[in-house]
Amino acid sequence: MDADVERLGRELLAQADRLAGFTEDPPRLTRVYLSPQHRAAGDHIASLMRAAGMQCGYDPLGNMVGRYEGETPGAPVVLIGSHMDSVRNAGRFDGLFGILSGIACVAELNRQRRRLPVAVEVVAFGDEEGVRFGVTLIGSKAMAGQFDPAWLDVRDATGVSLADALRAFGCDPTAWPSVDRRAQAPLAYLESHIEQGPVLLNEGLAVGVVTAIAGAERSTVTVTGLAGHAGTVPMGARQDALAAAAEMVLAIERIASSRAELVATVGRMQVLPGAVNVIPQDVVFSIDVRSGLDAVRRAAVADIEAECDRIAAHRRVALRREPLYLADAALCDPVLQECLAQAIAARGLEVRRLPSGAGHDAMVFPPLAPAAMLFVRCGNGGISHHPDETMSAHDAGLATQVLFDALLRLPAAFGLDATSV
Amino acid sequence: MDADVERLGRELLAQADRLAGFTEDPPRLTRVYLSPQHRAAGDHIASLMRAAGMQCGYDPLGNMVGRYEGETPGAPVVLIGSHMDSVRNAGRFDGLFGILSGIACVAELNRQRRRLPVAVEVVAFGDEEGVRFGVTLIGSKAMAGQFDPAWLDVRDATGVSLADALRAFGCDPTAWPSVDRRAQAPLAYLESHIEQGPVLLNEGLAVGVVTAIAGAERSTVTVTGLAGHAGTVPMGARQDALAAAAEMVLAIERIASSRAELVATVGRMQVLPGAVNVIPQDVVFSIDVRSGLDAVRRAAVADIEAECDRIAAHRRVALRREPLYLADAALCDPVLQECLAQAIAARGLEVRRLPSGAGHDAMVFPPLAPAAMLFVRCGNGGISHHPDETMSAHDAGLATQVLFDALLRLPAAFGLDATSV
Repeated sequence: MDADVERLGRELLAQADRLAGFTEDPPRLTRVYLSPQHRAAGDHIASLMRAAGMQCGYDPLGNMVGRYEGETPGAPVVLIGSHMDSVRNAGRFDGLFGILSGIACVAELNRQRRRLPVAVEVVAFGDEEGVRFGVTLIGSKAMAGQFDPAWLDVRDATGVSLADALRAFGCDPTAWPSVDRRAQAPLAYLESHIEQGPVLLNEGLAVGVVTAIAGAERSTVTVTGLAGHAGTVPMGARQDALAAAAEMVLAIERIASSRAELVATVGRMQVLPGAVNVIPQDVVFSIDVRSGLDAVRRAAVADIEAECDRIAAHRRVALRREPLYLADAALCDPVLQECLAQAIAARGLEVRRLPSGAGHDAMVFPPLAPAAMLFVRCGNGGISHHPDETMSAHDAGLATQVLFDALLRLPAAFGLDATSV
Repeated sequence: MDADVERLGRELLAQADRLAGFTEDPPRLTRVYLSPQHRAAGDHIASLMRAAGMQCGYDPLGNMVGRYEGETPGAPVVLIGSHMDSVRNAGRFDGLFGILSGIACVAELNRQRRRLPVAVEVVAFGDEEGVRFGVTLIGSKAMAGQFDPAWLDVRDATGVSLADALRAFGCDPTAWPSVDRRAQAPLAYLESHIEQGPVLLNEGLAVGVVTAIAGAERSTVTVTGLAGHAGTVPMGARQDALAAAAEMVLAIERIASSRAELVATVGRMQVLPGAVNVIPQDVVFSIDVRSGLDAVRRAAVADIEAECDRIAAHRRVALRREPLYLADAALCDPVLQECLAQAIAARGLEVRRLPSGAGHDAMVFPPLAPAAMLFVRCGNGGISHHPDETMSAHDAGLATQVLFDALLRLPAAFGLDATSV
């Protein structure tokens, strides 16, 4: 069995290496929506889907969708998905692993010439990261009935609209409504994904069951003090926007560290005018607060706002905040979580449940279908969105076997005829 | 007398307004070295010098130098100077006021048909701010014998070398050694300058005597942590470069605030990669520490370095520092300070002595000649290097009268025949 896990894992890693070659800036990996690299990756994924016994093709938004029929025509559909686009200078497992692992499950069914009481569709979403158009999760949102037609007019950095980019890719932008699966009512959505953090790694576990995809609240804060000559304004007379912002950064860190299931990050900061010999007048920074528990997130945001206001008042600087983004937590389906947990426990492994701090395609599915995620241990200290992102062959193989086992358990868990399981 | 002060001040302000019109980007004021605006300002200053009874012309580095002879040919020379270049989007008094005020003193001598036991030369330096070539104080350094011929090859942002720019201005770049006044051994250098800070303003004083031009030490600090996904890395597992840098900014502020005669500023900061959802990996920031007392500055720099090292170690981030600039304090001459102080006291005004936190042309003169500065109150909270920089007509006139009185006292103070005073 372990030999099988390793062999399967090595195959998956080889495929991930191969797909990492479809990039706009080798040796780095950057693959954005509707680019030639998207096309090359999608075509390669299609070849893997066909080899696994699936019918496949691009949908009107450039998602690659492969289908493996069930025992009967019209059987309920189980979706297995993740994304094929990447951030700039990305790791090779984020998104891709979920696609490869889903195809590997179907390949195993096909090798066994086995049909389930459900049809299985593997979806490689064209856009999750939002790098090109600044709109994230375009593929999965369209599938869940949340596509906004205004997005067709959004332009990339070179001025190309989404509609034009779709046409150049060979898609019909007006056909986006056909991507919507609400009428079909899929039975479930499953996604396996590299954790992109250090929790499983630090606990020595290969896989974990995701309980919820964290809600997130982002804002931009502008602190305005008074510029002045760095040599001539006494310390006590300063209204230094950077000193104020520094105090806020530490307050945000302190508030986030004081509670479980909460993280907060200041990732972006601009200091103006930004000269060695001028006291900063304006500082603009971002705040990103996340939690699997919406109440915890809301309380933290309120504390952060109050503390920043207090610091601004005390330092006689002005503070302006603008909301950037808000999403409540998406809860994973308990029945599907249980399928994954049983598949893990059946291998004698500890069942670790954990929230996902990152957003994923799975987060848009709960209104459409029960959704769940399997996390796979992330090596190198848990680094992701970075070339050092890594996954071991053992973990890749094991996670795929767990996903396969969970898929087999799924029809019965949803009360479908389980004779063939 | 007060009417005279006001009238003189209004004339000086009108001249400053006129000179603010020689700018490359109206309505903003930007006048860089060897530009057409430098030419226009220099020519206008020459017309003022001639009207004040001076012989004048450009020297080989584009400084405009006007001379008013003393009682006898070959009398010792008193230099009165400041700079005619500006920062970008500058105020209209920084530099210019010292030139206009010097010319006004000579104009008054000329009106009285009075000669002193000294010749008076007013110098409008072409470059002090260093905006165009990144080299500061070119004019005054050349006069003090500190010109580095390697500067002739330094290029501006468009690739033009200093030598080529000098030729285009009509100067002979090879003639720079003739600017050097060491062989002439001037008797004194005087400079009046807007304070560029709020000290006189906050104390309700029009003028002050500068004790020293602060020494400055600048460095660049690079903090390197570990990038990570803002949603997936627990707070306790982070090596956030920005949180570390924020703690350092506050430590620098705390150390500088705990001592008199010391300021420290973090004016520039860059956060990388600089994305809302990525924990900062690298932060690069500048530190600028100044004091009129070198021992105070050195002790503060040592404390800042130790504290930043401690914070870096505690937060498991790497710290690298690179020196940017180092200059010890330039002490103003006690005899010249006394001339200024007596001129102030003779008007029944409080004599306030204060260090200059900003650098000035005067700072390079002590090895060449005794040097001193008169500071003039800066309105609008002390703002400078900014269009809001302002000076009242009363203060402009009063400062010029003080400068004039000090000039009259100067020959006797230096033991010259004072019969004509």
